[in-house]
Amino acid sequence: MEELLLAIQNDDALWIEENLECLHFADIADILEGLDIDQAKYVYYCLNEDTQADVLMEFEEHVRDRFISKLTSKEIAEQLENLDSDDAADILGEFEDHKIQEVISHMEDDDAAEDIVDLLNYDDNTAGGLMQKEFIQARVDWPVDRCLVELRRQAKDVEKVYTIYVVDLQNKLMGVLSLKSLLFAKPKTKVSELYNSKNVISVKTTDSSETVAKVMEKYGLVAIPVVDFQNKLVGRITIDDVVDIIKEEADKDFQMASGLSENVEPQSSIWKTSRARLLWLFIGMLGGTFSAHVISNYEINIGKIPALAFFIPLITAMGGNVGVQSSAIVVQSLAKGADFSNISGKLLKEALVGLLNGVICSSIILGIATVLSNFQLGITVSLSLLIVIIFAAVAGSFVPLVLNKYKIDPALATGPFVTTLNDIIGLFIYFTVGTLLIGI
Amino acid sequence: MEELLLAIQNDDALWIEENLECLHFADIADILEGLDIDQAKYVYYCLNEDTQADVLMEFEEHVRDRFISKLTSKEIAEQLENLDSDDAADILGEFEDHKIQEVISHMEDDDAAEDIVDLLNYDDNTAGGLMQKEFIQARVDWPVDRCLVELRRQAKDVEKVYTIYVVDLQNKLMGVLSLKSLLFAKPKTKVSELYNSKNVISVKTTDSSETVAKVMEKYGLVAIPVVDFQNKLVGRITIDDVVDIIKEEADKDFQMASGLSENVEPQSSIWKTSRARLLWLFIGMLGGTFSAHVISNYEINIGKIPALAFFIPLITAMGGNVGVQSSAIVVQSLAKGADFSNISGKLLKEALVGLLNGVICSSIILGIATVLSNFQLGITVSLSLLIVIIFAAVAGSFVPLVLNKYKIDPALATGPFVTTLNDIIGLFIYFTVGTLLIGI
Repeated sequence: MEELLLAIQNDDALWIEENLECLHFADIADILEGLDIDQAKYVYYCLNEDTQADVLMEFEEHVRDRFISKLTSKEIAEQLENLDSDDAADILGEFEDHKIQEVISHMEDDDAAEDIVDLLNYDDNTAGGLMQKEFIQARVDWPVDRCLVELRRQAKDVEKVYTIYVVDLQNKLMGVLSLKSLLFAKPKTKVSELYNSKNVISVKTTDSSETVAKVMEKYGLVAIPVVDFQNKLVGRITIDDVVDIIKEEADKDFQMASGLSENVEPQSSIWKTSRARLLWLFIGMLGGTFSAHVISNYEINIGKIPALAFFIPLITAMGGNVGVQSSAIVVQSLAKGADFSNISGKLLKEALVGLLNGVICSSIILGIATVLSNFQLGITVSLSLLIVIIFAAVAGSFVPLVLNKYKIDPALATGPFVTTLNDIIGLFIYFTVGTLLIGI
Repeated sequence: MEELLLAIQNDDALWIEENLECLHFADIADILEGLDIDQAKYVYYCLNEDTQADVLMEFEEHVRDRFISKLTSKEIAEQLENLDSDDAADILGEFEDHKIQEVISHMEDDDAAEDIVDLLNYDDNTAGGLMQKEFIQARVDWPVDRCLVELRRQAKDVEKVYTIYVVDLQNKLMGVLSLKSLLFAKPKTKVSELYNSKNVISVKTTDSSETVAKVMEKYGLVAIPVVDFQNKLVGRITIDDVVDIIKEEADKDFQMASGLSENVEPQSSIWKTSRARLLWLFIGMLGGTFSAHVISNYEINIGKIPALAFFIPLITAMGGNVGVQSSAIVVQSLAKGADFSNISGKLLKEALVGLLNGVICSSIILGIATVLSNFQLGITVSLSLLIVIIFAAVAGSFVPLVLNKYKIDPALATGPFVTTLNDIIGLFIYFTVGTLLIGI
């Protein structure tokens, strides 16, 4: 690292090229992220073009954005020509319209420019937005030798070849051909005798990215062909892009369950971080106000027996915990595509789990509360806790199932809904039981 | 489906084979999961051997376990011979030792049996436990034509060929050779001229599965070679197995943050489901007991001004919410491998976010609490809320960072630690402010 900084100072491009080119591009990206932006730009331009492209896509998004903002439109155009079409379109899609036009006008490779412009038409969250134009195709009527010649020409642009897509004269997807089978075939054998037309899995340009991820996962694919409405082959999506979606989906659920309404990263601005949290905080305040209202109905009772107030946090915390636990399981199962046709069976099971946990917890709390106050209050806390735990377990499963039925993201439930609901209902149960048992 | 049930009743194996074999194995597995276990077994044995193996691995785990429990040791041995070695070892690893011996003794293919026994030696959560013995290798000194002959022989066993691994005479990993380059090479060219020895990424058998996932993700690989301590090639891991790990990791974080201490699924027994929840419930009860103790110090104050109790749930809920939000961002960033060397900078930012949100929330609550009780209490609630929100935001980031530093899973923090801690501290702040301001 010190040597690298020295080489930058000494303008020693040769040293930089020699010493960095032998590293993997992911590691080069790590190194550049550690430099300041002008140093990084200098080192970047010492690398050869293919490495540049790989390194650029390996940067963290916020580093890449900053890096690109340092380049002129002409420089950006040069960089885009080295990228896969899907990556180029992603970068370009971040710009304003006039900037996009400017960059495109600087591109020298017309085919590449056309591919990128075409990809810009698709919505980000669809198969069309994910796909790349680089893929290898063979016509069903070609013999193997012709196929090899054509493939060699195509393969220049395609970094990773997993499967060859077989199309007919109208460019309609017919099936797939493995490199393996091509490798061991005779030159005059026709593609039509080699390719696999059974179970050709593809997605449409308009399918959502979640659908793409589910299909690729279900069928264990590393690449999937994308077709248009006429079943014509227009692109392919590779597994690396889909792994990102799978992770983003899981992250989104986790964030939503944690009460964050936008995607927030440690680099996000203070205002964005605050804004993402405010929605749930407002819901929490609304819930807190309702809770205050519930308790205010028992003001006189609390005046007589202040010890009633001691266990308010216990009741709300336990209701919240049980609710979150119970809903988390349902939310995860729904995300995995589980089928909950037997809702009442699921709720009965939750009630039994709640009963079991409730009995264990409330026997313990009976002792603790009796010591901290008296036996009468001990019974009150213990009995309310039992009811609250059972109720929270059932509600925690019920809410996400209902949300899911009405096509609302069930992950919402593990956060705001369930904890706030359980706070209010839990307090109502506690004070009702207290009033009945202590008979104030 | 009805036709299938009819075919089962009529013992019409031919109909079943004809109509199911044209489906994708993932879809066949879905259909079999809908049948009862004896019907499923009947249909399963109508399929050809390769499809059987694919379908078996496509089953959900609990279905597969039940299905296999219906088979004799000899039948299991037959099934294992059709599977990839890593899948076979996973299934076998679930059995008791004597059962493993029995099944192995029924296997007819000695090589396959040896591979499986070898894989059983590795820990489940290491690269050795994940790898399969099926991969394609070429010796660096072979010419292309010899290579093709050898590969054809090897490729029978290997379902998906992504890359050919190049080894030397001692079987040490030298580099990789793409099928693409082999496809376009002349018969007498040596492998040594074609293969890529730069940046060969591999993992050791003892590396953890998390490491494998991180390395494959970082370098965007669909398959990675596994080497032993002498750098000898012993297996490979494919991306589909790693996608599962990535998902499991995310799921584990989500579960831990939701207060579940074991992996629970909707099919898990009532006792297992209860047990997974009890740990956090105990922590919650301990926290609730502490909270009760904090409040009990102010028993006289509450007796005089019962309205103090109204806002207990508001204070604890908001402290919990802010804490969970703040820790969730840190936990996710840590899971993504973010580097938090500048801890104090991060905490300062959290404090500012807390200040911003705190000012907004406490101004609103000032109005609400004044209406519900009086201005004096309104000021108390509002000021404590501000302090609690700032404290919770900082603590929510601090706790996971500290846990991470001491190699404890930071996801623990978003659940039990942060909410319980914030409840207790929040109540302490609230009653201290109340005592000072109202001056009881």
